[in-house]
This record gives sequence, C-alpha cells and structure tokens, in this order.
Amino acid sequence: MDLNTYLKKKQKLIDGFLKAYTGGLKKQKECPALLSEAMSYSLMAGGKRIRPVFCIAAYEAAGGRSEEIMPVAASLELIHTYSLIHDDLPAMDDDDLRRNRPTNHRVFGEAAAILAGDALLTDAFGIIAGVKAPPEMLISVIRELTHACGPEGMVGGQLVDIMLEGKRAKKRELLYIHQHKTGTFIKGAIRIGAIMANASSAKLNALTKYGEKVGLAFQVIDDILDITGTPEETGKTTGSDIAKSKNTYPSLYGLKKSKEIAKGLINDSLAAIKAFDEKAEPLREIAKYMLERKN
Amino acid sequence: MDLNTYLKKKQKLIDGFLKAYTGGLKKQKECPALLSEAMSYSLMAGGKRIRPVFCIAAYEAAGGRSEEIMPVAASLELIHTYSLIHDDLPAMDDDDLRRNRPTNHRVFGEAAAILAGDALLTDAFGIIAGVKAPPEMLISVIRELTHACGPEGMVGGQLVDIMLEGKRAKKRELLYIHQHKTGTFIKGAIRIGAIMANASSAKLNALTKYGEKVGLAFQVIDDILDITGTPEETGKTTGSDIAKSKNTYPSLYGLKKSKEIAKGLINDSLAAIKAFDEKAEPLREIAKYMLERKN
Repeated sequence: MDLNTYLKKKQKLIDGFLKAYTGGLKKQKECPALLSEAMSYSLMAGGKRIRPVFCIAAYEAAGGRSEEIMPVAASLELIHTYSLIHDDLPAMDDDDLRRNRPTNHRVFGEAAAILAGDALLTDAFGIIAGVKAPPEMLISVIRELTHACGPEGMVGGQLVDIMLEGKRAKKRELLYIHQHKTGTFIKGAIRIGAIMANASSAKLNALTKYGEKVGLAFQVIDDILDITGTPEETGKTTGSDIAKSKNTYPSLYGLKKSKEIAKGLINDSLAAIKAFDEKAEPLREIAKYMLERKN
Repeated sequence: MDLNTYLKKKQKLIDGFLKAYTGGLKKQKECPALLSEAMSYSLMAGGKRIRPVFCIAAYEAAGGRSEEIMPVAASLELIHTYSLIHDDLPAMDDDDLRRNRPTNHRVFGEAAAILAGDALLTDAFGIIAGVKAPPEMLISVIRELTHACGPEGMVGGQLVDIMLEGKRAKKRELLYIHQHKTGTFIKGAIRIGAIMANASSAKLNALTKYGEKVGLAFQVIDDILDITGTPEETGKTTGSDIAKSKNTYPSLYGLKKSKEIAKGLINDSLAAIKAFDEKAEPLREIAKYMLERKN
C-alpha cells in the first residue's frame, strides 16, 4: 500500500466533512459570524488530521466498512483544535504561530479564542450524538472520549505540563505529561475506531496496546522535532520548548536516547497488532512513518 | 407546596451527587490534584443549582419518577460552572468575586482556570454517558445540551455580550444576548428534564414555551439585581454591568420597564403550563419566585 495516497484520501474525506460542518455554522443564523469565523479559522488550518486518521485506520483494521465513521473521526479534530486554541493562549503556552499562521487569539482576540475553543469542544459531542449508528455504540464512544480528553486525560496532561514549566520534571512526571497530553487522546481515537467497528475484546485490547505505544511515540517525536525541525517543516515556532524550559524527552534523556525510545515504542506498537490481517496495513505504515515525519 | 423546602431538598440531592463526583476526582490518580481542586472549588461554591432544579422540576411535571434524573441534572451544573469560570477570566468579564469568594483564576491562576473549565465541560458529557437510561434517550439529551450550550446557544450569547461591551446594543441584539447567554440553557435544562421523562410532544412543546419565557426572565432579573442588589445578597460584585458598560435591560429600557417585562415573561411562562396538573406546581412556584429573588 502507498501510505501517502491513503493519508491524502482520508484527509480529503475528513476535510470534506469539516468544511460541510463549518459551512453549516456560517449559515446558522443563531451563531455569531465572528464565532464561526474563529472556529473555522483554526479548524480549517490544514492539520495532519492524524487523530481522525488513526480512528478510521483502527476502524478499518477491526473490520469496519461504513461511512458512519467519518463524522465520529472528524469530531476528534474539533477536540484537537479546541485544545490547540486554548493551549496557545497567553496564559498557557503563549504561542504566536500555529500551522504557519498566527494563532487564534492573535487574530480574533483572547475572548473569542477561549469561546471558539469551548464551542468546538461542545460541538464535538453534538456531532457524535447526530451520527446514524446504534445509540449504545455512540454512548460508548462518548464515554471513551471524555475519559481520553477530560481531567484524567488530555486536560490533566496539559495542566501538569504547564505547572512544571521551568522546573526539572522527574522521569515519571514527564511520562505522565506525555501519556496524558497526547497519548491518551491518540489511544482514545484508536479505541473509538475499534468500538465503532464492534471489535471483539481481543482486537480492542490489541488496538489499545498499539494506541498506547504509538500515542506516546508521537509526543516523544514531537519533542525531537521541536529541536531538529524548522518552522517551515513543522508549521510552528521550533525551539520553543527550550526557550520555555519545557520538560521534554530530549531535555531529560538527550536526543540520541530519545530517538531510541521512540523507535522502541514504534516496534512495540507494531508487535501489538501482529495478528491482524492486511486491513491493519495502514496502522502499521503510519507507525513506521512516525519515525520519519518532519511535521 | 412550600417552595423553600422543595428547593432545599433538590439542592441537597444535587450537592450530594456533585460531592460524590468531586470526591471521585480527588481519588482518581490520573487527575492532577491541582486540577481536581480547581474544579471542586467552583463546583462546590454553593450556587442555587437552578438549572438542575429546573431540569428535575420539568422531569417531575412531565411524570418522571426515577432517580436517574439526578446525574443528568447535576451534569448541567458542571456546564454552568465551566461557563462561569471562563466568563470570569481577565480576557472575558474580568471578575474577582463570584459566590462571595475569589474567582477561580484569582485562586488557581489563569491556566488552571481555563483547564478546569475545559475539564468540567468534558466531564458533563461523560456523566450523562454513564447514566443508566435508554441510550437513545441519553443521545437526545446530549443533542439538546450541545445545541443549548454550543456556538448557536450559550457560547454565542457570551461572545456577542463581550463584543458589544461599551457599545450601545440595539434591542434585538440585547434580546439575542439574553436569550442565548442564559435563556437557551435554562430552556434546554427544562427540555432535557422532559426528554428524560419521555414527555409527549404536546407536553414537550408546552415546557419549551415555559422554558423560553422563564429563561429570558431569569437574565432580565439578573440585570435588575445587578443594580438593586448588594454584593452580600447576590454573592458577586454588583454594579459591574454599569462599570463595564454592559448592555442590560435596565440600560436600554430603564428599571421600571424592565421589571414590567420580567413580570410579563413570568406570566407567559405560567400560561404555557396551565394545562399541567399539580406535579407542575414546583415549576409554577419557581417562576413566581423569580420576581422576588434577591440572588
């Protein structure tokens, strides 16, 4: 299989759904124009859509075949986008550049940015609740998602990350940050794909393991790219982790050891889904690609 | 019926649920202590719990009898609390006092306050998804809630409110702000109670009308109290609307006319549920009480 073709195809489907969503928002008289603009600005900034892609690839790996996965997968991008908007705020990471463009609050102001994030988070659940799938399945998805992105997941990770800025984290604290800030959401995206495909518990467990490893690897590699990448490649200010004394794998383990850790995690993720057939090929290729990615 | 006894009883049930929820958070190892503290601080600050109470009263008015309404009703308080935390931020309303205590960001810092709000919003949906009720009913509740609190609801109202600060709003803009900032959520809380009770569409429509009128009245009366109340009574800085050149009913219509409008809305709300039996007595009493409330 050609991963690039696969990614492009899925990204196009996701972008199509997101475009229809933001188009609907703009036509919705009850939604203020400034709010739909602020939401669309960040949502349509052309990210990698990696969480939706993971969700779809896991869905397919577990035997799912319907288009119903699309809105569920796309809703994950609303949540990811809300978290970026809030994380970039002056009171948080205070970033000016995201995906090669000024951050949301630099364009729309802080109040609109906070509210655009709130609205995206809220609407993510609204989109899922509107999917034509068995309601008990959607309820499982929502439970999974709130666990992955709530106080014991992504939000918790973000808080510890900010609180330890400028302090030297212990290794277990760094692991907590990375697992929660990024890992649990990616793992959650993969589990949600499996749930939507009605995966057996054996398959769900294997995909969970895959998600755990690949999710952590993703953040370790992000740390590495903040040092080795350029703003043109990554679409964001690089070197900002060092400038802000962020706790990262390179800062704690060094660059070489961090790369080894990432490689080990990717190998573990591949081992977890060894028993899957060729429908898991995209998941395997994505994992391998992680080690080569530049953004 | 004695409204005071009714309110106290329901508030106690809601507070009991919320206490169990925050207790669970504190024990949850994956949730950072600072985050659960920030969430609990605002959630347990002892509000009126009026949205949950509306939800329960509508549930009962429509014939609901089970305890399953409690978590659903309590989840509304998580959303209300998140909106207060975010609204109080320096970039938003910049308030120092809420429910007679320093606002969340004054105690925990802005980053923790933003994240505590995000976590409460996320967990609200997690609580609903965990309720033992027919999944299709819970999906309807989530759809209703995202509509009431998303970009075309509460968040939209808050944005327009902030954007028009210092400018003189047109009457239709003020109506938009009040209907969306407060009205749709209260209407939504009432509709959610009706949905959980499996109300007939006739009953749902009547309760929707009641909710629309009483929800708008609630915000008009809030405006009035900001002028006529004291900080001791209302638990927040009074006179702040004038200080911040907020658009309010008194600022556009004058105090006397605003009181008349509120009274008219309350009468309309009572008319909407005229056909209901004695199980709607709490809804009627709450509506009448609105006109007398001091906080």
